[in-house]
Amino acid sequence: MNFVKMHGLGNDFIIFEALDKVNYDWNEIAKKVCDRHIGIGADGILIVENSDIADVKMVIINSDGSYAEMCGNGLRCFSKYVYERGIVKKEILNIETGAGVLEVVLKIENGIVKGVRVNMGKPILEEDKNFYKLNVLDRTFNATTMIMGVPHTVIYVDEIKDEDVIKYGPIIEKMEMFKRGTNVNFVKIIDDKHIQVRTWERGAGYTLACGTGTCASVVASYINNFTDKNVIAHLKLGDLRINYEDYVYMEGPAEFICEGRILL
Amino acid sequence: MNFVKMHGLGNDFIIFEALDKVNYDWNEIAKKVCDRHIGIGADGILIVENSDIADVKMVIINSDGSYAEMCGNGLRCFSKYVYERGIVKKEILNIETGAGVLEVVLKIENGIVKGVRVNMGKPILEEDKNFYKLNVLDRTFNATTMIMGVPHTVIYVDEIKDEDVIKYGPIIEKMEMFKRGTNVNFVKIIDDKHIQVRTWERGAGYTLACGTGTCASVVASYINNFTDKNVIAHLKLGDLRINYEDYVYMEGPAEFICEGRILL
Repeated sequence: MNFVKMHGLGNDFIIFEALDKVNYDWNEIAKKVCDRHIGIGADGILIVENSDIADVKMVIINSDGSYAEMCGNGLRCFSKYVYERGIVKKEILNIETGAGVLEVVLKIENGIVKGVRVNMGKPILEEDKNFYKLNVLDRTFNATTMIMGVPHTVIYVDEIKDEDVIKYGPIIEKMEMFKRGTNVNFVKIIDDKHIQVRTWERGAGYTLACGTGTCASVVASYINNFTDKNVIAHLKLGDLRINYEDYVYMEGPAEFICEGRILL
Repeated sequence: MNFVKMHGLGNDFIIFEALDKVNYDWNEIAKKVCDRHIGIGADGILIVENSDIADVKMVIINSDGSYAEMCGNGLRCFSKYVYERGIVKKEILNIETGAGVLEVVLKIENGIVKGVRVNMGKPILEEDKNFYKLNVLDRTFNATTMIMGVPHTVIYVDEIKDEDVIKYGPIIEKMEMFKRGTNVNFVKIIDDKHIQVRTWERGAGYTLACGTGTCASVVASYINNFTDKNVIAHLKLGDLRINYEDYVYMEGPAEFICEGRILL
């Protein structure tokens, strides 16, 4: 069985092609190959399938074998893969996902996909949840909460410290007021075109890169007049370029790591 | 650049062949490919080199780029690799390592290496460090301390609980009485031929499998009349068979995970 391993800002995936009908137990395969010690190691697998309604179909399965509807970092890897491997040779791709058909735009230089731009949908804002005071332990944060695909709370800090993300993140995630829980994005404003973001992910903890969280951070920063609508967000391992125009567009990198054959 | 990924009881390695002279910066390569998110992911790399004094030479570099003299789990992977890939087609191999030339014996079935037996050297025991009382926080353990390659302390428990390994391990590791620090092995005696072992590794923390620690656990259990000289030790992901006859022999498995080409 052949595979390719890729990552988008440290969120890593193993890609399998299943353009011909195959009868694999992908959930079991995901658990096996994603194990970081006795498998290849990844956050999830991406399966390339034929689509009846789009150019191609992406199926995502998490490392625990559960099904995921969508993942921005995964979609960028997937898009680079299908273009560079010649499966869909278009610069604008329609990809069928668990969250519907999504359009992605590729930035191509000499046949290499240098960036992938994804329409991440619209944020759902609530007036009383914008720039409110959030008391957590010994601190009071200025916070904005919205739905950006999933629930997100953005809090502003002068300096982002990993220990603060780990200290306050899990407490905010589970606060009474967030009925479905919340992702927590720690944001430092650098200037009106640059912010720094670290996300504590609901159910997953400290994460290297959260696409929807970065989008929520820029939306909150724009509506609070901290930034422009076009912002470069610095994440742990690189940058995402976010553009908020009714819809939120996210552009970022994807990288190949290795390719090969599974011997398990 | 081609690679193979293997593991020995969850201790995982990326193997590179360098039988022809190459001028790579292996330390940099190790850091890059061992990263678990933007690389392939592994505890270290094993480099297959020609030897002037043995059948073949194994070089180990840890994931942080540092050099390691020897590693029992790595040596098993390496041995299976060189045999099955036809580099040294012998059932008894002499392998040059940073800890000298070591002899390994392969158990082969239909051309497949099913087990690898390694001479792990002799323990260095001290009379006053056998079955002494060790007080740690709220507990008093029966402990035996020895040098088995590196310093090891074996403590006996009725049940092995991961939370105890994480609670007491780091405190014992750094106790005043252990001048060079100590690895800490939690051992449950099942019967005179079976024990269960979990190791807290000095400088590395909770580990899935520690070869020298498992050897120390059997040596301590034999000299304290808990077990025979031939013992099967149950580790987190499988078994090691230990035989203590002046020298300590360790037999265990090694598995292929995948092979391929690096695209970084």
